[in-house]
Amino acid sequence: MPVTMDLAHLLQDGGKIILFVWDGVGGIQAGADDVTELQAARPPNADRLVAAGCGGLLEPVYPGVTPGSGPGHLGLFGYDPVEYRIGRGALEAVGVGFDFRPADVAARLNLCTLDSGGNVTDRRAGRIPTDESTQVVAKLAEAVGEVDGVEVHWAPVKEHRALMVFRGEGLGDGLEDTDPQATGVPPREVTTTDESPESARTAEIARKVLARAREVLADEPKANMILARGFAERPAWPTVTERFGLRAAVVAGTPMYRGVAKLVGMEALEATNDVEKDVASLAAAWDDYDFFFLHYKHTDKAGEDGDFDAKVACIEEADAALPALEALGPAVLTVTADHSTPSAMKAHSFHPVPVLLSAATARRDGVTEFNEVACAAGGLGLRPSTHLMPLALGHAGRLAKFGA
Amino acid sequence: MPVTMDLAHLLQDGGKIILFVWDGVGGIQAGADDVTELQAARPPNADRLVAAGCGGLLEPVYPGVTPGSGPGHLGLFGYDPVEYRIGRGALEAVGVGFDFRPADVAARLNLCTLDSGGNVTDRRAGRIPTDESTQVVAKLAEAVGEVDGVEVHWAPVKEHRALMVFRGEGLGDGLEDTDPQATGVPPREVTTTDESPESARTAEIARKVLARAREVLADEPKANMILARGFAERPAWPTVTERFGLRAAVVAGTPMYRGVAKLVGMEALEATNDVEKDVASLAAAWDDYDFFFLHYKHTDKAGEDGDFDAKVACIEEADAALPALEALGPAVLTVTADHSTPSAMKAHSFHPVPVLLSAATARRDGVTEFNEVACAAGGLGLRPSTHLMPLALGHAGRLAKFGA
Repeated sequence: MPVTMDLAHLLQDGGKIILFVWDGVGGIQAGADDVTELQAARPPNADRLVAAGCGGLLEPVYPGVTPGSGPGHLGLFGYDPVEYRIGRGALEAVGVGFDFRPADVAARLNLCTLDSGGNVTDRRAGRIPTDESTQVVAKLAEAVGEVDGVEVHWAPVKEHRALMVFRGEGLGDGLEDTDPQATGVPPREVTTTDESPESARTAEIARKVLARAREVLADEPKANMILARGFAERPAWPTVTERFGLRAAVVAGTPMYRGVAKLVGMEALEATNDVEKDVASLAAAWDDYDFFFLHYKHTDKAGEDGDFDAKVACIEEADAALPALEALGPAVLTVTADHSTPSAMKAHSFHPVPVLLSAATARRDGVTEFNEVACAAGGLGLRPSTHLMPLALGHAGRLAKFGA
Repeated sequence: MPVTMDLAHLLQDGGKIILFVWDGVGGIQAGADDVTELQAARPPNADRLVAAGCGGLLEPVYPGVTPGSGPGHLGLFGYDPVEYRIGRGALEAVGVGFDFRPADVAARLNLCTLDSGGNVTDRRAGRIPTDESTQVVAKLAEAVGEVDGVEVHWAPVKEHRALMVFRGEGLGDGLEDTDPQATGVPPREVTTTDESPESARTAEIARKVLARAREVLADEPKANMILARGFAERPAWPTVTERFGLRAAVVAGTPMYRGVAKLVGMEALEATNDVEKDVASLAAAWDDYDFFFLHYKHTDKAGEDGDFDAKVACIEEADAALPALEALGPAVLTVTADHSTPSAMKAHSFHPVPVLLSAATARRDGVTEFNEVACAAGGLGLRPSTHLMPLALGHAGRLAKFGA
């Protein structure tokens, strides 16, 4: 069996697919009851769906490897994250809805505070409120719009975060971060990670932009400098339309998840991180797409906060959205996660994630609960997460017979 | 998911790992009770550890393929044995503690008996005792120390076994065995398996060495000739330090297992094949290493002897060593085998091996017995054995997050 199979010649029309991601929903046992968050929640709709369908475990990147959010989602979309690498700047650029083009180079910014000696005293400028940071970024956009013939675009994100995009000929993205990841030291100088003239030129532009930013922001009380991270070009990947024949939409209220979906050719629908509204947004576009990726963020947040009970409550909230999705009549409805975020670990983890697949064509496997332990005995087995997309296509009748 | 992922950029400090190999422990059901040796043994400590941790099955080389000892162990160390090939001579050379260097070519020898017509009458020279064979090998070393500018090193091993190593410029290891694997026929002529000038030159040297050996041993009553097998250079592989960031030690009383561990950069600690002493040897070096490979040989021997009850007793003996390992406080303690050796088959077999992984970060999976049947339902699933090392690293906190 190959690691990845080219399915293009097998694609045919078929039913609609919903991929509902409960971000970070996988856990490990904790507390007096010694159960995972899913075992504690016993989500009634997911339990019912897995009982009528099938379950399994997905491994997102590689055994023992903890996925970031980008890699975790790429795997679910059928893109091996070890092969499809993406820079953080690129992810942020598409995530905020910036018109990010193939030759552009993007970087994430932190507004930060420097002392009079030029050392960083706060890497997040006191977590400056968004309305204030928006004004700071507007000031930069006003003052630094072009350097050496390269356009410099700026966009505020949230609180201390912002985006910077260079647009022009002959740019490269082999640049180190200038964020020193520490206070009491100055921002790092701009240096390159490769020997290409494109990266060298881009580094020279970045130096001028950062020097100019320092002048422009000198009088700001909190955000008197910027730190750049994750310089990255927009990757030119084949889309889910090309690879899987899907007109695909993403409903994700958080820029990063929307961003990674857009990189593989999904169109962004309105999303708010309010699951009821997000389901309504999906339903409103039901006729226009074959594949819907719906993202539920709050499970991950509760896990990272180490709040077991909050994560259980989030699972229940996400679970309550399932009947509305079922009512749309998808051929395949699948629920899983991009990675585990055990509240006992307060962080993403390497543990495989449970998956349920509900379809008229599903082979029932005796699994009656949607959790890590029950799904370990499921008919889908333990697999790389890149197997989910072909499984969904198959169950939706979208893959023709291979060979005579 | 790639077959192998380069983890170098993810390595970080973390906890200590113990890999405890119960050689050949996997079995198939046999006897009136129709159970495997592990099912009969019900090892109390391993059962307790898997109940508090997680279980699974590892496939050592490829489905249906029976591993030799070298490949079986390489997989557990995270080296795909189909990619990392090792000649038997190379394994023996490092296993006996010979100073085996990158350009050397080693071969295993059998002292044998020829009749007056030059045909082999005993491929093992009557299983000549070690003290006698040592004298025979000393005679060879005395008489054949250099040929055509190439040093010829000799070492006795055990009984009829010995080692021969060529050291010089421009050697190759594309040589066929001279052992005819039969009696009543002469030793095979030295021939090459490739067209390289290095192998041709080495074959010429081997011909001269073997001719000289025949003269030197002509008067020996039993061991009047040698048969050469497994010509092999020392492979130049990346070490576990380079690949996995581990200072690693091996505690294995048998040369071959120590040898394969040394080929991937493990340092050999004192070992005797007395499990209590070997655990003490490991404990004495606890502060100096991150990773310990402890080898228990006797399960395999009992399996090869077809002695079900002896194998059960060996399992109990190995199991009794676990509390002393737990007392050291490893972050990860894993127990598994390099291959199965069902006593019903009296040989290595292709069956997957059970594995248990005990760690504070383990996700409990409901498996409460350490045996082939219970572990088949485990949360670690059925995997290539090369997955064990990254899983151990992940559970020990030694791998950073992949991607943003």
